[in-house]
Amino acid sequence: MELRRWPRKNDPASIEARQAALDGRVDSEVFGQDLTPWAKAQEALTGVSVIPTAVIGPLTISLGDYELTEPEGTVVARGRANDDVFVPLAHTEGSMSDSLFRGARAAAESGGFRTYVLQDRITRASCFVCKSASEALTLATWIEGEVETMRAWIAELDDPSVSRHAKLREVKTHVVGPMCHVLWRWTTGDAVGANMMTRNSYFLNMGFVMERSPVKPERALLEANMGGDKKSSYEYFQGGHGKTVIAETTLTEDAIRRVLRTTIDDLLELSWAGTHGAVASGMQSVAFTPATAIAAIFAATGQDLGMVGTSSMCHGTGRRVEGGLNVALRLPGLEVSTVGGGTTLPYARSWLGLMDCAGPGKVYRFAQIVAAATLALEISASAAMATAGSANFFKAHFERGGLR
Amino acid sequence: MELRRWPRKNDPASIEARQAALDGRVDSEVFGQDLTPWAKAQEALTGVSVIPTAVIGPLTISLGDYELTEPEGTVVARGRANDDVFVPLAHTEGSMSDSLFRGARAAAESGGFRTYVLQDRITRASCFVCKSASEALTLATWIEGEVETMRAWIAELDDPSVSRHAKLREVKTHVVGPMCHVLWRWTTGDAVGANMMTRNSYFLNMGFVMERSPVKPERALLEANMGGDKKSSYEYFQGGHGKTVIAETTLTEDAIRRVLRTTIDDLLELSWAGTHGAVASGMQSVAFTPATAIAAIFAATGQDLGMVGTSSMCHGTGRRVEGGLNVALRLPGLEVSTVGGGTTLPYARSWLGLMDCAGPGKVYRFAQIVAAATLALEISASAAMATAGSANFFKAHFERGGLR
Amino acid sequence: MELRRWPRKNDPASIEARQAALDGRVDSEVFGQDLTPWAKAQEALTGVSVIPTAVIGPLTISLGDYELTEPEGTVVARGRANDDVFVPLAHTEGSMSDSLFRGARAAAESGGFRTYVLQDRITRASCFVCKSASEALTLATWIEGEVETMRAWIAELDDPSVSRHAKLREVKTHVVGPMCHVLWRWTTGDAVGANMMTRNSYFLNMGFVMERSPVKPERALLEANMGGDKKSSYEYFQGGHGKTVIAETTLTEDAIRRVLRTTIDDLLELSWAGTHGAVASGMQSVAFTPATAIAAIFAATGQDLGMVGTSSMCHGTGRRVEGGLNVALRLPGLEVSTVGGGTTLPYARSWLGLMDCAGPGKVYRFAQIVAAATLALEISASAAMATAGSANFFKAHFERGGLR
Amino acid sequence: MELRRWPRKNDPASIEARQAALDGRVDSEVFGQDLTPWAKAQEALTGVSVIPTAVIGPLTISLGDYELTEPEGTVVARGRANDDVFVPLAHTEGSMSDSLFRGARAAAESGGFRTYVLQDRITRASCFVCKSASEALTLATWIEGEVETMRAWIAELDDPSVSRHAKLREVKTHVVGPMCHVLWRWTTGDAVGANMMTRNSYFLNMGFVMERSPVKPERALLEANMGGDKKSSYEYFQGGHGKTVIAETTLTEDAIRRVLRTTIDDLLELSWAGTHGAVASGMQSVAFTPATAIAAIFAATGQDLGMVGTSSMCHGTGRRVEGGLNVALRLPGLEVSTVGGGTTLPYARSWLGLMDCAGPGKVYRFAQIVAAATLALEISASAAMATAGSANFFKAHFERGGLR
Repeated sequence: MELRRWPRKNDPASIEARQAALDGRVDSEVFGQDLTPWAKAQEALTGVSVIPTAVIGPLTISLGDYELTEPEGTVVARGRANDDVFVPLAHTEGSMSDSLFRGARAAAESGGFRTYVLQDRITRASCFVCKSASEALTLATWIEGEVETMRAWIAELDDPSVSRHAKLREVKTHVVGPMCHVLWRWTTGDAVGANMMTRNSYFLNMGFVMERSPVKPERALLEANMGGDKKSSYEYFQGGHGKTVIAETTLTEDAIRRVLRTTIDDLLELSWAGTHGAVASGMQSVAFTPATAIAAIFAATGQDLGMVGTSSMCHGTGRRVEGGLNVALRLPGLEVSTVGGGTTLPYARSWLGLMDCAGPGKVYRFAQIVAAATLALEISASAAMATAGSANFFKAHFERGGLR
Repeated sequence: MELRRWPRKNDPASIEARQAALDGRVDSEVFGQDLTPWAKAQEALTGVSVIPTAVIGPLTISLGDYELTEPEGTVVARGRANDDVFVPLAHTEGSMSDSLFRGARAAAESGGFRTYVLQDRITRASCFVCKSASEALTLATWIEGEVETMRAWIAELDDPSVSRHAKLREVKTHVVGPMCHVLWRWTTGDAVGANMMTRNSYFLNMGFVMERSPVKPERALLEANMGGDKKSSYEYFQGGHGKTVIAETTLTEDAIRRVLRTTIDDLLELSWAGTHGAVASGMQSVAFTPATAIAAIFAATGQDLGMVGTSSMCHGTGRRVEGGLNVALRLPGLEVSTVGGGTTLPYARSWLGLMDCAGPGKVYRFAQIVAAATLALEISASAAMATAGSANFFKAHFERGGLR
Repeated sequence: MELRRWPRKNDPASIEARQAALDGRVDSEVFGQDLTPWAKAQEALTGVSVIPTAVIGPLTISLGDYELTEPEGTVVARGRANDDVFVPLAHTEGSMSDSLFRGARAAAESGGFRTYVLQDRITRASCFVCKSASEALTLATWIEGEVETMRAWIAELDDPSVSRHAKLREVKTHVVGPMCHVLWRWTTGDAVGANMMTRNSYFLNMGFVMERSPVKPERALLEANMGGDKKSSYEYFQGGHGKTVIAETTLTEDAIRRVLRTTIDDLLELSWAGTHGAVASGMQSVAFTPATAIAAIFAATGQDLGMVGTSSMCHGTGRRVEGGLNVALRLPGLEVSTVGGGTTLPYARSWLGLMDCAGPGKVYRFAQIVAAATLALEISASAAMATAGSANFFKAHFERGGLR
Repeated sequence: MELRRWPRKNDPASIEARQAALDGRVDSEVFGQDLTPWAKAQEALTGVSVIPTAVIGPLTISLGDYELTEPEGTVVARGRANDDVFVPLAHTEGSMSDSLFRGARAAAESGGFRTYVLQDRITRASCFVCKSASEALTLATWIEGEVETMRAWIAELDDPSVSRHAKLREVKTHVVGPMCHVLWRWTTGDAVGANMMTRNSYFLNMGFVMERSPVKPERALLEANMGGDKKSSYEYFQGGHGKTVIAETTLTEDAIRRVLRTTIDDLLELSWAGTHGAVASGMQSVAFTPATAIAAIFAATGQDLGMVGTSSMCHGTGRRVEGGLNVALRLPGLEVSTVGGGTTLPYARSWLGLMDCAGPGKVYRFAQIVAAATLALEISASAAMATAGSANFFKAHFERGGLR
């Protein structure tokens, strides 16, 4: 078949046509599931992929209860409560589930995890190209003064493609040469919101800025990389994107010795060498393996897997304190959702449900659980690496990494 | 149930115990598949996750045929042939499959994609902590002189946990303070090889370096971040990790106008603004959305989803040339495999098979197909963004991003 | 002489003792100048260093006239006027002064330079180490709410070491693990202000935060690198430090051809390759050689030469516009002063005076002149490099780089 | 006077014409020195700048004696000896000379500094723009195979502008899109060598590559930023440029207490917080204030002040070891010279002479002395900052920073 004739619709006939065209090219096991529930998820739907999924738990987590202030969109805590959570992990990496279990156990014996949501923002980094830096500066100053007006304007806009969930919180401009980069910073409720903030930013760009600006930009671009849409950036590593979350626990010496089979000294030495290794290699994150846990939860819960890299940006620390070793992760860019996208589809909605994270009002809870689970794996993997010569890390790879 | 009593084995009784413990907490659809085929993939297996999967194709790609020289491990071309390939995409992002289709069509009408494998390496970044920089320098000099001896030593080592597939190619040392960081650089055949190079590096560290070194390091760490294990780093962005691949095509003006509905000028302006936006935001990659395509193929084919971020490091360019617009992606760190890990499991092995990429001898082919598909999406998404005001990008989000 | 007995005072006897101790070790030309005028500049004063200094001019610059709003400290323009300025360049690099001349001439024939001050801030990046991330978050929230109170408190503080010139403008907190990093952001009038903001930040840390904080930090550090004191950082590359300035001009085709002996196409190709080279090498700045001009003006005018690297952070662009080629530099971190430090000393005060930049009320003028001169050199050096094979760059190095 | 008529020659009449033109605009003190000795240093010479200069010493340093192997250009040690060195510091920063003194004293009481030269390279990052990535890859492979031939070719080239001092050591290629970036890596004896390697690279580009390449590049650029000519880059931070040097000492507890008035614990806490602050701010270097010492020595000794930023790239560490605290700096890019450029001019040659660093065969000695002096200041400044609340740092700023 020619590429140009390849059908992309998801009516039964198109699906069947694709499956027929691939007959003999692919094992038919991939066609064995009824595709109807996914027919609206994407085009050219042809089969399914299945990933084996572990459950580890219950993790003991002190979870914050958060809400947004209006109109600033600041995340503030209403309270805090302990909860026990079972975490689904879709992956195929031998020893990983068990390692996360071990880290969770060390934390549980030390009083559990504590998690915090610091910030909630999603950004569309538009750009207006002007004739000169002078004009770009004029534009930037004008835009920064119009934020209130823009909020009102978009709220009153009578267009079905305007999202009511996406709320503009601030605008940041950055002029380089004749470019006026504009970071439209939104909150989008329990969705990641890439789609809704894209639409609203388009309206602001074309309906407001291009119409009213005191200078006439030559070009408006919805997205021009001054942020980090699925690419990690310092802008988001420091300033945050999606949900900015911290997870921590203070491991007792006893838990470190009995459960993790290492010592505070060994963990601190690893942390010291690993931090300087990160600096020497030009690594942005300082951490061990946050992407492993995050990818596994994302795959189970219908998150956007293209956001694994950005969501795994991580700044981890360890410090000896009274009572043991404080370990913490700052995850500045967790792009998670409990509504929309893949989260409402079969399996994903169920696995979210297991964590009591399906649907509206759950996204801060979910972000915190992801952070705690990530820290659990980080603790255990670090402990394996910190032993003399990293022997336990080696052993885990030899004994349980059998499929590799 | 208490965390400490949570069963992690995958015998039928343990699986059943877990499912019973979760009864009422999770929709039973996740338990509906026989887990036997995945019982060795990971611990605490409890259910499955299912991701709807599109197929787009056939993509027209000029694929290089490569082999490694011995003992240097240099990738050299044996030949080159055109092929038509169907690509599976496991994801839930509306408009993405269709967009990739459009980019592939523009390329096909311009003569197709051309792909190249530049390098093949996987690195374990160990670290020896010494008493002083002086000792660390002595150690570094000694290690660099012992590479030949180490190769012979490990080849003769009679230990079942030594991998015969992992071949040491070079060693790079980097001394910072009393640390001697050592990058053991391997090739590992058609596997990503994280497991096998970990084991062999452990043997080199503990059996060779710690036993024979002219100075006595205080500590050996198998991995200390001077590389980029699931974290992106400049070391790997420039120096490469896994497979370093380039995909390119020269789009004709006609294809740009008819298929992509934009112009060379518009695409170049977007590329210019997007590159400077990336610089301003401290983004390492310069690209649009490589992680989207890479994650979708990884999810379908049993790749390690924790490696989506590092595999998506990307340096993209566009330049007007005779005949149209040359567009190219450099993907320095594609961590892909066609054997081992999740690739031999149901569904994954089938989707790899669709591309003729299952099993030994296929990894360079697979890496090139991933790169071509990534470029296909990059072309189309850029075109949508490059139109006046990025109107086509907006429309795609409004009309087909319905689940968001 | 033993190190511990080395005298460090600057009374005549101590100076003489040092000179006597070095008799025979160093050529006495370095002692040939009366040191009295510099006796308060630094300890252990022993002689002088002399740097030959060119003057190039007059540069035609459209300079903005700026003031700070109170209490926000926003830089706002009061007006704009053309001026002709002679620039002193203390250096020993053959062909550099002439090259800067050529760039200035190309700009003059294109209507001159335009310069803009975007922001004025100097930051002390303190850090409070707490027992846990939880406490650090509590501290951060509290600090952000106390800014008004702090401003009043420090204004009323009756202590001779409090600086009245340093005004606190905002505070930015950043929690990582148990650390609460606090960026105290000041304006300091016409001085760089490192000294005065250090003193005031110390008072805030010890007199306010440590006394009143709702949690008890274990440790307060005045500076902990979350900024960029003489080290370049993304925080300052993007967010700015010292004076953030843009200089631009739109070169006419005629000036490019006649004065610069190249073409718009050639300059754009160089810019394109140079920008992608910067990305590939992990270079933060995108520019050619801003440090060359900045160092030469700094050395002549008593600026802190340790700040050459940070002041040279630069994001340069070129874009074809109606009427020619727009070229612009964004210098985010110009750490310049017209009062205090070395600026009041002989020679320095005179060279500042040549530019009408000596003393109070001149620092924005000076910052803009530095930016324009830097752009002048950038234009010419780029033009030399842009010619076929960069032949003109080669020639400049061969013919006039004779001392190298 | 019009810019276009500004004279740039250095004959007495031109100098006088410039001084006359500036009469009344600048204090005549700047014209008070005979300019003849500097007449070849740069164009448009008009006056001088004078910087007060301290001398601190003698620093006790164990200096390595190094030579280059042929033809690889590897730095190897021939021996090692202790030396006592007086260091000139041209600057105007109150408390800095005294602080460096204190750090040197702490080191002296701990057995002195030890310094090591790891590598010697200077790079011209050329770029060949081809029609496609395919052609750029062909070019890269060809260039890497021609290094031997190139060495012979340039050695035999009969052209007065070829430098015999610049020796090509390796070539590194990096293909991005249609660009083949080529890092020509040279050694240049005791000069920094920017000029000589520029000329030789030009010959290689135009005389060898463009003439013989199997593909025809559209464009050759001598320098395209894939390195770091006066801009810091990861390429040079890790890979090195100029001289890569390590300085270290192991401070005794006694010296830390008596001379530095702090403790190992306090210094380690500062180092920990400062390293994580650097990570959070996207700072490449991890250090305190290396640029301060480096700029002061550069200004006294005729080094290129535009290279202060790159020469100050620094990776510092501290670690508790038996006997005290090991502190070390890795300076990867010290661009220093003892011949050529400003080093042969009055004052500069004298100050170099004070350190026995003037002329051929001295550059490794000089690089090591710079590194030791930089570490001396780093130790003392860190100690002032590490005290409770950084009180000693505050005091130094208050009591001796009087000119600020």
